[in-house]
Amino acid sequence: MAKKKKKPFKITPIGGLGEIGKNMTLFEMNGEGFLIDCGIMFPANDMHGVDYIIPDFRWLEERDDIRLHGVCFTHGHEDHIGAVQLLVTAFPDLPLYATPLTAGLLQVKLKNARRLKTTNLNTFNAGETVQIGPFKLESFHVCHSIPDCVGFGINTPYGIVIHTGDYKFDNTPVHGRKTDYARLAGFAQRGVALLLADSTNSDKAGWTQSEAVIEPAFERVFREAKGRVMVATFASLISRVQQVVTVARKYKRKVCITGYTMSQYAKIARKLGYLSVDDASLINIGQAREMPPHKVVFMVTGSQGEPSAVLGKLASGRHQQLEVRENDTIILSSHPIPGNEEMVYRTINRLIERGADVIYDPIEAVHVSGHACQEEMRLMLNLTQPRHLIPIHGEIRHLHLHAKLAAASGIPKENITVISNGTTVELDGRGLTVGERQPGGYVFVDGSGVGDVGRAVIRDREILAQDGFVLVSVNVDQRSGELIDEPRIVSRGFVYLKDAEDFLEQIRDNISQLVSRRRLNGNRQSLVEESLGKFIYNETKRRPMIFSIVNEV
Amino acid sequence: MAKKKKKPFKITPIGGLGEIGKNMTLFEMNGEGFLIDCGIMFPANDMHGVDYIIPDFRWLEERDDIRLHGVCFTHGHEDHIGAVQLLVTAFPDLPLYATPLTAGLLQVKLKNARRLKTTNLNTFNAGETVQIGPFKLESFHVCHSIPDCVGFGINTPYGIVIHTGDYKFDNTPVHGRKTDYARLAGFAQRGVALLLADSTNSDKAGWTQSEAVIEPAFERVFREAKGRVMVATFASLISRVQQVVTVARKYKRKVCITGYTMSQYAKIARKLGYLSVDDASLINIGQAREMPPHKVVFMVTGSQGEPSAVLGKLASGRHQQLEVRENDTIILSSHPIPGNEEMVYRTINRLIERGADVIYDPIEAVHVSGHACQEEMRLMLNLTQPRHLIPIHGEIRHLHLHAKLAAASGIPKENITVISNGTTVELDGRGLTVGERQPGGYVFVDGSGVGDVGRAVIRDREILAQDGFVLVSVNVDQRSGELIDEPRIVSRGFVYLKDAEDFLEQIRDNISQLVSRRRLNGNRQSLVEESLGKFIYNETKRRPMIFSIVNEV
Repeated sequence: MAKKKKKPFKITPIGGLGEIGKNMTLFEMNGEGFLIDCGIMFPANDMHGVDYIIPDFRWLEERDDIRLHGVCFTHGHEDHIGAVQLLVTAFPDLPLYATPLTAGLLQVKLKNARRLKTTNLNTFNAGETVQIGPFKLESFHVCHSIPDCVGFGINTPYGIVIHTGDYKFDNTPVHGRKTDYARLAGFAQRGVALLLADSTNSDKAGWTQSEAVIEPAFERVFREAKGRVMVATFASLISRVQQVVTVARKYKRKVCITGYTMSQYAKIARKLGYLSVDDASLINIGQAREMPPHKVVFMVTGSQGEPSAVLGKLASGRHQQLEVRENDTIILSSHPIPGNEEMVYRTINRLIERGADVIYDPIEAVHVSGHACQEEMRLMLNLTQPRHLIPIHGEIRHLHLHAKLAAASGIPKENITVISNGTTVELDGRGLTVGERQPGGYVFVDGSGVGDVGRAVIRDREILAQDGFVLVSVNVDQRSGELIDEPRIVSRGFVYLKDAEDFLEQIRDNISQLVSRRRLNGNRQSLVEESLGKFIYNETKRRPMIFSIVNEV
Repeated sequence: MAKKKKKPFKITPIGGLGEIGKNMTLFEMNGEGFLIDCGIMFPANDMHGVDYIIPDFRWLEERDDIRLHGVCFTHGHEDHIGAVQLLVTAFPDLPLYATPLTAGLLQVKLKNARRLKTTNLNTFNAGETVQIGPFKLESFHVCHSIPDCVGFGINTPYGIVIHTGDYKFDNTPVHGRKTDYARLAGFAQRGVALLLADSTNSDKAGWTQSEAVIEPAFERVFREAKGRVMVATFASLISRVQQVVTVARKYKRKVCITGYTMSQYAKIARKLGYLSVDDASLINIGQAREMPPHKVVFMVTGSQGEPSAVLGKLASGRHQQLEVRENDTIILSSHPIPGNEEMVYRTINRLIERGADVIYDPIEAVHVSGHACQEEMRLMLNLTQPRHLIPIHGEIRHLHLHAKLAAASGIPKENITVISNGTTVELDGRGLTVGERQPGGYVFVDGSGVGDVGRAVIRDREILAQDGFVLVSVNVDQRSGELIDEPRIVSRGFVYLKDAEDFLEQIRDNISQLVSRRRLNGNRQSLVEESLGKFIYNETKRRPMIFSIVNEV
């Protein structure tokens, strides 16, 4: 008994913004460990200037008490593989394990980061068992919105721990292979100690629509389209590219895949047999521009309204080779990620203003979720019959709903644990306990800097975004303490200075009076700033950042 | 013929962010005019620091060729009445016309702005005809999510022009009164030249659910709630307050209405007979705190995730008198306005973290839209049989879908006109023509300033939000051109300076070298800024705003 207590099987979700256990999870026991996934997240609207966010695994680098044996990937979407180049920079010897398509996408990423040659990248097929150090992971195929997705049944002394990855039970998937019902049922017979299961759609009743509904929707749109068709989606949605290619063939349109990442991903998917398209069906932008409009379909990125992606450039008229024309039909084959709605709809509005007909869900079922809805979550629970449940993949509100649903399905409430990122849970023969909280959370990436922009900088950016700043520079005579010349003012984001000459004059007067009224000693700078801040708030009810530079000459 | 051409009936939607013809519309003919509505809009996420937006009616103040006879309000929501105090400041003699409840809410607004006594506020009952100067407006009752809403049938020499306002065809409305089918059908018999109709839900199939579904949903939640119940909604959703009061009575809970605006609105609605609740059922916060949790329901504001409203304060633990407890049930009786999703869901997550059970649509039908869906839009077209349609109230994407729907319903395409805000359309005996574009758009309100923050300031705030700023101040000897002391650096929102001492040192070196390498003449300042900008971009791939102050002493 005492010995068992010493070596629980520990699970720690690492980082991730908003969603819990999405981007990276650590599994460890007895000083040995492995990771599942290593993805990026996109910043919230008030994380100003942040390009993306990576899980904070810096504390792992400092842990001498654990030997990491590898990282295992569930599938090839950015939020599961996007930070791999940073991980292998920190842990150069760490072996990677992935299914062929996921490995192909990892190769693209590693090659672009010049890390491919030095990285130990291993492939396995969905359904095969992966041995990572002392850990035996039985992979099982799941359906999602990219081929070659897996979950894992991890063997532990306390029973099987299942990690579903992103999944849905699509009975008519694009690539034919179903979620592995048999394997999941088999786990149940052997005893599932713990289920870690996707909660993304726990607020949606019923069963997620099959990817199969998308093709008929594409067909309806292609049939009606008078001019060119453009389909926007994520670069990594290989199944969607396949569907566009299939429908394009039927309607005798050539396919032009634009954008660097999407082209690279399509290339590797073709090479590995996950994207079936012959050379003659593919054209480049130059060829596409020469063809009659009704003979072409473009695949483009930017379905989340990103201004720098192809669709964003088309919307603002800034694309170098393409422009939106009257009679173009543009399909957004995607749903806005929460927080992106405003940008997505703004992009749609601009494309319509430029004359395009824009089709998106709910106008047509041109996108379906890749995640299980409530009925599928119940099926997952009933198939695997876990003793314990930790809802993962979703915001706290989704995890709580998943927990409620599981309790209503018969899992004892005390066996359901909702945790936050960075919290370790421990599984042993007696059950599940919530352990300690790990340091760190996530790391902001801004420009070429990883982690040099922290909460303090973001807070300053927020203040600057709200009310801008005002800086006054004064030259003061060292001996007399008198102003030598007029205070100079630099300000941005506060008021439009050209229309505020009177106000600037008042500020200068205010400073001059302050300096002349009393000889400022010691804290001249803070006296100036304090006085100026009060004056500005009284006049405008705004609180710009206030700075002063006092030169004593 | 020539005479007719001289006096078309002109319609100009004014201002409004994203939505067209929502907040204010000008109608004019032959030098006489009137307005419908005068509301505010909330800023987009990248309109940094803007509190709200008002329609830009400044060009109207300058027009000597038109005599304004009044403004007529459709209903009492903020996006239709919220800028009234600014309008009556600009046009002190302009009479206002509104139904009793709308007039009551206008009174509250005008009183708070100390404009009530000087304003000419007139009431009419839904269904009555309003004579505004030479214009005859036949009001008709419509259902929405506040009582006492109307649309208008405006008599013109060219036929009736119908403005629907915000509407839906609720057959079981909370307050009993239906949308006036008979009047709409009557207009058709007399000849509708033009329909201006709400397009908000043009991407939603079917028929909007009745407000009647909300009460049973509330009942289910109240029945299950173990502790306190809090219901968050808009202050002006009087029908929703009524529903909460009704269900609270049934479950023997007292109602505590929190927040200044919501209390004031509830008070006036009670006084005017639009909110039925006896004194004994209402309690204040002090009393509520003394009562057993299962005996209380709170009505709170902040359902859009606004940090400064009651719900936002509860989520962050900053409310002075209330805190969220284990077993509290919180209902968000609202949908996020597009762009607010992230803030709303963040608020929900925080409330859950504090132990509350949070209920929102789609978990329960605790809110329904106040706007018509596609089937109702078709009904509106079929009831009124307009010759022309201008879709209003919605983003461009909604207007286009409404136009498509109308074309499929039999309105000739050439008789459907999608316009943007600020564009005048002219109706005469020959039909509808798109006229000139008016100046202006909308005006930002920030703090106490109306209109002093324009696009240039917002652009600067965006740059500051992305990468912050760096300012260097150098003192240079007037004669030798040599640096007198070390350059001083002020920076915020760029990198965390305490961790970047090396980098600051590099910047100082860079400046010192530049100044010593050549004697800077004339444009010292821009040379310093250019050099510094390049250096910083090369090192960090970021583009903060760069400023320099060169003191020659």
